[in-house]
Amino acid sequence: MAAAPAGGTAAMSRDAFRAAVTNTLERRLFFVPSFKIYGGVAGLYDYGPPGCSVKANVLASWRQHFVLEEGMLEVDCPCVTPEVVLKASGHVEKFTDLMVKDEKTGNCYRADHLLKDFCKDKLEKDHTLSPEQAEEYNKILAILDDLSAEQLGAKIREFGIVAPDTKNPLSDPYPFNLMFQTSIGPSGLSPGYMRPETAQGIFVNFKDLYYYNGNKLPFAAAQIGQAFRNEISPRQGLLRVREFTLAEIEHFVDPEDKSHPKFGDVSDLEFLMFPREDQMAGKSARRLKIGDAVSEGTVNNETLGYFIGRVYLFLTQLGIDKDRLRFRQHLPNEMAHYAADCWDAEIECSYGWIECVGIADRSAYDLRAHSDKSGEKLEAHEKFAEPREVEKLVITPSKKELGLAFKGNQRMVLEALEAMGETEALDMKAALESKGEVEFKVCTLGKDVTIKKSMVSINIEKKKEHQRKFTPSVIEPSFGIGRIIYCLFEHCFYQRPGKAEDEQLNVFGFPPLVAPIKCTVFPLVKLEKFEVVAKKISKALTAAGVSHIIDMTGNTIGKRYARTDEIGVPLAITVDNTTSVTVRDRDSKDQIRVDVDEVASVVKEVMDGQSTWADIMWRYPAHTASAADEEDAEP
Amino acid sequence: MAAAPAGGTAAMSRDAFRAAVTNTLERRLFFVPSFKIYGGVAGLYDYGPPGCSVKANVLASWRQHFVLEEGMLEVDCPCVTPEVVLKASGHVEKFTDLMVKDEKTGNCYRADHLLKDFCKDKLEKDHTLSPEQAEEYNKILAILDDLSAEQLGAKIREFGIVAPDTKNPLSDPYPFNLMFQTSIGPSGLSPGYMRPETAQGIFVNFKDLYYYNGNKLPFAAAQIGQAFRNEISPRQGLLRVREFTLAEIEHFVDPEDKSHPKFGDVSDLEFLMFPREDQMAGKSARRLKIGDAVSEGTVNNETLGYFIGRVYLFLTQLGIDKDRLRFRQHLPNEMAHYAADCWDAEIECSYGWIECVGIADRSAYDLRAHSDKSGEKLEAHEKFAEPREVEKLVITPSKKELGLAFKGNQRMVLEALEAMGETEALDMKAALESKGEVEFKVCTLGKDVTIKKSMVSINIEKKKEHQRKFTPSVIEPSFGIGRIIYCLFEHCFYQRPGKAEDEQLNVFGFPPLVAPIKCTVFPLVKLEKFEVVAKKISKALTAAGVSHIIDMTGNTIGKRYARTDEIGVPLAITVDNTTSVTVRDRDSKDQIRVDVDEVASVVKEVMDGQSTWADIMWRYPAHTASAADEEDAEP
Repeated sequence: MAAAPAGGTAAMSRDAFRAAVTNTLERRLFFVPSFKIYGGVAGLYDYGPPGCSVKANVLASWRQHFVLEEGMLEVDCPCVTPEVVLKASGHVEKFTDLMVKDEKTGNCYRADHLLKDFCKDKLEKDHTLSPEQAEEYNKILAILDDLSAEQLGAKIREFGIVAPDTKNPLSDPYPFNLMFQTSIGPSGLSPGYMRPETAQGIFVNFKDLYYYNGNKLPFAAAQIGQAFRNEISPRQGLLRVREFTLAEIEHFVDPEDKSHPKFGDVSDLEFLMFPREDQMAGKSARRLKIGDAVSEGTVNNETLGYFIGRVYLFLTQLGIDKDRLRFRQHLPNEMAHYAADCWDAEIECSYGWIECVGIADRSAYDLRAHSDKSGEKLEAHEKFAEPREVEKLVITPSKKELGLAFKGNQRMVLEALEAMGETEALDMKAALESKGEVEFKVCTLGKDVTIKKSMVSINIEKKKEHQRKFTPSVIEPSFGIGRIIYCLFEHCFYQRPGKAEDEQLNVFGFPPLVAPIKCTVFPLVKLEKFEVVAKKISKALTAAGVSHIIDMTGNTIGKRYARTDEIGVPLAITVDNTTSVTVRDRDSKDQIRVDVDEVASVVKEVMDGQSTWADIMWRYPAHTASAADEEDAEP
Repeated sequence: MAAAPAGGTAAMSRDAFRAAVTNTLERRLFFVPSFKIYGGVAGLYDYGPPGCSVKANVLASWRQHFVLEEGMLEVDCPCVTPEVVLKASGHVEKFTDLMVKDEKTGNCYRADHLLKDFCKDKLEKDHTLSPEQAEEYNKILAILDDLSAEQLGAKIREFGIVAPDTKNPLSDPYPFNLMFQTSIGPSGLSPGYMRPETAQGIFVNFKDLYYYNGNKLPFAAAQIGQAFRNEISPRQGLLRVREFTLAEIEHFVDPEDKSHPKFGDVSDLEFLMFPREDQMAGKSARRLKIGDAVSEGTVNNETLGYFIGRVYLFLTQLGIDKDRLRFRQHLPNEMAHYAADCWDAEIECSYGWIECVGIADRSAYDLRAHSDKSGEKLEAHEKFAEPREVEKLVITPSKKELGLAFKGNQRMVLEALEAMGETEALDMKAALESKGEVEFKVCTLGKDVTIKKSMVSINIEKKKEHQRKFTPSVIEPSFGIGRIIYCLFEHCFYQRPGKAEDEQLNVFGFPPLVAPIKCTVFPLVKLEKFEVVAKKISKALTAAGVSHIIDMTGNTIGKRYARTDEIGVPLAITVDNTTSVTVRDRDSKDQIRVDVDEVASVVKEVMDGQSTWADIMWRYPAHTASAADEEDAEP
């Protein structure tokens, strides 16, 4: 297909552009608000036939690009999840947003959204602001995600922010858990949640998957499925919803060797990257070679870099514009304490830059969390060819001395001593040897205790080991499929002038890979001989596995082209003769003549990507359309 | 592929057979209990890599066979569903099972299961039963599904049935709603449920889908997705679970014309059917032509018959044994009052005959229910070529007379009069003319009232109409994908003798269409030249889109065949030469020699169904395996 023409759309405002896209999407049933006849539910959408088909195509590409080409282990776990799993993962405690309530109506709002709207509004509309005030509002916008409940509440009170719908006063902010809660079984005693991500289903199966993979690292498991977030007040249409499809990969790797054998396949790729340092220095994203980004240490390791490259290939192959795609590194305050590095694939659309894929090196956090909670060892081992002599830290607390000194607290002190890392232990050893005693913080007691030399011996000992046991690191690319699809809709959409004055025709310039329907077949006029040919071609297309529709309505050919452009059908076959037919390309509107018997295989060739439209144009004679054929919009 | 050999497996008991199948399925990670490291949750299962792949293949076949070949409109709606939708559908009120509680521990049981187990146990184990007692227990088993809560409770008390785990007394049976309940949004004021079926998402979109289809009937919409049932006490492994994948079709049709243009394509199919009359007469299922079943009126209409035929083709093409598949018609007491006819595709497995697909003519029930509840008209219209003169029933109540007679109840009486059907109204007219008054039941008042001649005029009037408006009937084929897959596992599984004495090797004889992996590639021995060839073949297979694995482990070739047979890989390529290789068929164990450059396309040909293994055997020379190659099980 030719590239989408630039004209027409460029000059529109973001809001007008978005309105044109979403209007077309809803009118042609790509998606509609769910349960519309009952007034709908915020944050829930249905995919109608063309949207459903685009989604199926995107998921099939994902499965081909990641699961099949990389030999990943795909699993399929339930959405209903018992509480214990999500306690271990931290979601029960931490998967929250701060909420405020209208004190009279009980309406709920996200506290940070209200503060954000207030600051933006001031900056945009209040022309009496002093430079100091403007700076303050800008500062708040920059640190919004870091504010605690108390800080948010203080700002809301300070600025006198009230409920937007009623102007009533607001409660203090408090955390609201975003998981949909339910109860498993009839007793009411087993709380459960609808999973907020698919990843946990993979982590809890690590042991079986590692065995399935022949007890070898690295390997990746993948899952496509529904996930749920009970958003406080969903906004931004398809971008922030309460139920969505995730496609997640958990790549398990030896923390001491994060190289990737196929890194060379992607290392020359160059695309927009936005490293942490550049963001903090107020710079813009810039084009970087992923090979250089890894070798210079901007990206933490090869495996992470490999997936960034593969994600770039995946998204651009779907039709995402490479100039509106960037990989942004998380700032230190965005990243979980355990994460080694994290990059988001952000796609620019009318809502701004939107996080669509997260690619994180989560270190050993998840497997350790489930190992601790379940008591099941989730680790890998590397057998040594020869036994190795290793130096090992040995911490031996004296139970007797600890018992005498700490009585009922002795177990907590003992466990804290045994849990010390190497540096901490060696520091303690040095301190005990020089001063005889040292202050030691016991987290489980919430206080410092005094450790004396007699209470613990700390030594480095040499040992022979036959294998190394370790908890694998996990590198997690996580894809928000609905967000990718929405951005794809925006990137593929354009308008071009119609025949009537001021008329704009809508086009979705989907690449064949994602187009919901690959081809339409129209008889030029209602004549039985043309209908017979159309049915014959349809049969050949079915046999070739090309999804298509026949349009036997009596509409003008121009109207039929307009209808088919609007749902992004790449090729249209007009039956205007019983031996050869016209094939028309959606984007260039070029037309060629092809024999009836050949046309299905020609269409298949272009749809499978074996030939481009330009290749085909060389092989077949052009057909000059009469002016009446084109630019005829819907009545 | 050759048909699976019958030997070995036939003689096993059902329990031993099931144990052998499920043991293999769990060991090879087709599926595992979910959240196993936390002790699991009853009724929740994960599909591991080969299971996930079988599932993806089954769903892809379903989409091809139904959505694409029949031009259905596929939609994708959320699982989270607001209460109002499920009140309209009747699920909030009626989607229940009767439950009893252990009065001391609070453990819950399905009341009918306890009574069923008790009766079966008595019949099987109590040799002192009188013929009258045996007859009573058999009668209870036959009518179990029809018993009310009171009747079940009476039987439980009469037989002294106690809690099976503790022998404690049980509560009276009471209804437990099987939907997982949750709350949508942060207020706690919007109850919602996880959908118990996908169908409602289609019904509420009827208006848009009808418009999308050019306001034409018939058309079908389809949806694949998760559904949820909070079973009281899940049993029967993969067959009764709390979360499962459904694939549902809602075919909307004019109630006055349920013919199907493609019925001729299936009318000659002959398979096991079990009509209502045969069941009630104590007969067995018998082979019937679907064409005859429709023309004789056994199956209500052509469209229902068409889908029964299509379901038969779908299931047998997956590998379901046609002799263990029957279509059983619902008995009058099983069918909802509104259903016109209903047939279940039942598959026989070690648990007995299992309902895997339901094919129901649900008349206009669902659309009417949502139309009534939402106030949105969900109807179709047929434009007449010429205006038609029609006779129309006109009921004109006299508000004045009704007001005088019924005061505050007048509205209820008026609405009941207007809602009368034609027969009822004409009976009333006749009665009023002969007797001057008539008793009339007003449901909303819960009593009869006396209607006098002055209160209502009833007439048949002639009118000109330009179109007919009506609520379409819906014919619903609904597929339990997990149940189909489990039955497929059982139908494809067999054992054959291994080399060692008494050793039995497991084989899944999946057809290529559903096999999780199509082909394996082994170097015969660990030699670099063979590994190079293996990698070359692997690359060609990837290019041809054939899913495969390379096994470079040093295991004997026999062990590798056994491993690959156990996950149902149809073909194995052994690299024993650098120019030609051995290709071995899983079921027949026949081997042929094929050139290295040709082998990928030969494998693709058989996997795509363009050729059978028998065709290929003709074309290539046989390879005679040394005895050492085969029958070598896992250590």
